[in-house]
Amino acid sequence: MNIDVNEAIGFGAAVLTTIAFLPQVYKTWKTKDVSSLSLPMLILFFIGIVLWLVYGFLKNSPSMIFANAITVISALLLLYFKMKYK
Amino acid sequence: MNIDVNEAIGFGAAVLTTIAFLPQVYKTWKTKDVSSLSLPMLILFFIGIVLWLVYGFLKNSPSMIFANAITVISALLLLYFKMKYK
Repeated sequence: MNIDVNEAIGFGAAVLTTIAFLPQVYKTWKTKDVSSLSLPMLILFFIGIVLWLVYGFLKNSPSMIFANAITVISALLLLYFKMKYK
Repeated sequence: MNIDVNEAIGFGAAVLTTIAFLPQVYKTWKTKDVSSLSLPMLILFFIGIVLWLVYGFLKNSPSMIFANAITVISALLLLYFKMKYK
């Protein structure tokens, strides 16, 4: 198996920045506390991740599509919680 | 000027997911309210962005380096606020 150190670092980065939002989604869902979450952050982040997902499709990059498909769901859930529980 | 639609979308994505954290940093700094921010999210996200920054250097990508250098500062500030104001 050929291991490319650069791509391993990129893959690790993608995994971490994707799974990072899962504990936030879980915490927000459990506590319904959205007081310290910034609405402009959630809106900009959601639109940005949608663009990353589009970019992943345009570049035919399965790892970008996979990572951003998970993150777009996290971002959408956080945005929904923020508007529902405010 | 040669405009590549794919790269314009990628650039827009990078700009949005970079500036998204600035209103969060500002809000957290002003309110000192970190109650609804997830500590595991901040730790995973910070390490992930450090890896993206390293990957940007390894790939000699000025835009990845620039975007992630800003985001790593945002992530570090949020992590610092979370630990200081908890």
